[in-house]
Amino acid sequence: MENIRIQEVKERIITDNDAVALRTREDLTKKKVFFVNLMSSPGAGKTTLLAGTIKRLSGTYRIGVLEADVDSDVDARAVYEAGARVIQLHTGGSCHMDADMTVRGLEALDISDLDLVFLENVGNLVCPAEFDTGAHKKVMILSVPEGDDKPLKYPLMFSVSDLLIVNKTDTLPVFDFSFDALSKNLGQVNPTIPMIRLCALDGSGFDKWIDYLETEIAAFKGSKGEQ
Amino acid sequence: MENIRIQEVKERIITDNDAVALRTREDLTKKKVFFVNLMSSPGAGKTTLLAGTIKRLSGTYRIGVLEADVDSDVDARAVYEAGARVIQLHTGGSCHMDADMTVRGLEALDISDLDLVFLENVGNLVCPAEFDTGAHKKVMILSVPEGDDKPLKYPLMFSVSDLLIVNKTDTLPVFDFSFDALSKNLGQVNPTIPMIRLCALDGSGFDKWIDYLETEIAAFKGSKGEQ
Repeated sequence: MENIRIQEVKERIITDNDAVALRTREDLTKKKVFFVNLMSSPGAGKTTLLAGTIKRLSGTYRIGVLEADVDSDVDARAVYEAGARVIQLHTGGSCHMDADMTVRGLEALDISDLDLVFLENVGNLVCPAEFDTGAHKKVMILSVPEGDDKPLKYPLMFSVSDLLIVNKTDTLPVFDFSFDALSKNLGQVNPTIPMIRLCALDGSGFDKWIDYLETEIAAFKGSKGEQ
Repeated sequence: MENIRIQEVKERIITDNDAVALRTREDLTKKKVFFVNLMSSPGAGKTTLLAGTIKRLSGTYRIGVLEADVDSDVDARAVYEAGARVIQLHTGGSCHMDADMTVRGLEALDISDLDLVFLENVGNLVCPAEFDTGAHKKVMILSVPEGDDKPLKYPLMFSVSDLLIVNKTDTLPVFDFSFDALSKNLGQVNPTIPMIRLCALDGSGFDKWIDYLETEIAAFKGSKGEQ
């Protein structure tokens, strides 16, 4: 698709990921670009959530997306059609994005005129949790079909995230998924994490996610002394 | 749980994973132990499939399981209760099992009196595909809720696997999942991979998976000149 550029961002050996991430975050803050790292398992609904978010917010903010995948550009197309500037990053086999790969992605995207950037990380609950990318907020999606036991099995992802979105709530009648069990399991790894229940496909609960983003962006801009 | 031992198997730097895997496979073949590497996303149903398989086959074969997880022992309990010898492997943050970690797991399990061993790999569609563990067969599970586009996004996993199980077929009415689209996408990465559709939870289609295993095990034993 002619509107979607593809950028190769193979992993390089970087000694201090956290230092690169910190510089990225400071730079984005200076440029007033709010940056969100979106993480989940394969098929949990990152792209549908992102496309819905862009449709609702593209009238208010100029939005860019880094689409990270091992291969393909299927997600980038959906996000582009929703109304965001997008660059497809191919990670060359790497199962996560690190801070250095993110810097190269942001440069390729060109953020100079953007307000809000999302990184759609590689679908994986393990390694993406280990790498600070420089994002201001880490948001993870757990989908109902994956099960309520996942905090016990992927504790780092649940513990580093700033917000947990539980997606595909329309399928609750079909799956043996208990929010009580989820809360109990979260209690062992991140008892205070805020949670939003929604269905990205039919839009139920979506307003809470949009409210969360608008509140966070307002606080971010406020912290820079702006109106 | 007193019946479940936990073994730490952190990743070490091994120069030649394939050589270690090859030695493991030869050793297992000599010992007449058939070894299957089971891979999928988090929550695709590996444990439910495995527990159902053990219940059906434990009268015929002596079965062992390597349960690989970043943390927890929830899956090991389910598998133990189904009737297999099991060891829980904690990968120390690693998102996959490699050949060296597998060797240490097999030693801890003690395979001397076993016929059939399963490795339940870490839930991840990226890195586990890159590491030969020494298994005779690689089986991957895709669950309906994950979507029919996954071969395009995780091509290596679909291309290295010997069998594709499509699980959670009971949820087909709820999800926008097309077997035609899946086949088309598989055509780009592994057109000849055999596919079994089943629901591990209610058992529909399960006989085909059991038949597959019994046929493979018979061929394996036959190749050793046994009756």
